[in-house]
Amino acid sequence: MKLKHLAAAGLALGIAAGALAQEKPEDQIRYRQAVMNVVGHAFGPMIAMAQGKIPYNQDVVAKNSSLLEALIGLPWTSFGPGTDKGAPTKAGKKIWSEPAKFKDASDKVEQAVGNLDKSAKSGDEKAVKVALGHLGKACKSCHDDFRTKESHN
Amino acid sequence: MKLKHLAAAGLALGIAAGALAQEKPEDQIRYRQAVMNVVGHAFGPMIAMAQGKIPYNQDVVAKNSSLLEALIGLPWTSFGPGTDKGAPTKAGKKIWSEPAKFKDASDKVEQAVGNLDKSAKSGDEKAVKVALGHLGKACKSCHDDFRTKESHN
Repeated sequence: MKLKHLAAAGLALGIAAGALAQEKPEDQIRYRQAVMNVVGHAFGPMIAMAQGKIPYNQDVVAKNSSLLEALIGLPWTSFGPGTDKGAPTKAGKKIWSEPAKFKDASDKVEQAVGNLDKSAKSGDEKAVKVALGHLGKACKSCHDDFRTKESHN
Repeated sequence: MKLKHLAAAGLALGIAAGALAQEKPEDQIRYRQAVMNVVGHAFGPMIAMAQGKIPYNQDVVAKNSSLLEALIGLPWTSFGPGTDKGAPTKAGKKIWSEPAKFKDASDKVEQAVGNLDKSAKSGDEKAVKVALGHLGKACKSCHDDFRTKESHN
């Protein structure tokens, strides 16, 4: 029964194949966009706090920073060969033509998330806000260099 | 400069509005689908391990179970009023006509993820596989009752 349930769940979720082999370009594109969507939703309220648009909430900061830390390592391997198209994407050509620079930019984002998570765990609001500023800058820098304004296919 | 970077990052990510107010139906739909996409990618390799299709890897199990635990509470509030349409979705009408049953089904998924995460932290492979079986069943049960086979708009 257990294996039957697992197989059924795998089929239902449409993920068994993805777990075993490199995914198709369209699925890699959707996955990295999904991760970034969740990243954006975790980051958004913290930006609003840093801007003073909503009250600072340490619980939300701790939870969302921890989520960011768990997510931020995930999308990079889904910029595989041939995933510059296959589904609507804003991924810029420089991701594949300048991979060392892309890695450097994504490393900086990961480091900034790590610093934010450490600050969030310390509960130091001022340090959190500084870390959020650095993360915002790292996000923007990577998007400016490696993301197109409009989707292409 | 810090606030400027944050504002720019918010605009770049398109999330500042979402952080401050209830999102549009299409954005709620995309968010819950994004969370489920990442959930599926975390669950997939563990299903494959439980099925013996790939070797059991305690590090992956611990990491992915922890990620599931961080993610699984997120999608439910994005099934808000009016989000039965607005973008292609497989959300079934019973989500809104039978909210208590939907909550019960999603609670069971959350509990199953909690149990998996505990088992994963204990490092007990047998307990992990039992917990994966229960989680697979909880996923499938919710999908059977509340998800349509085809997308609708």
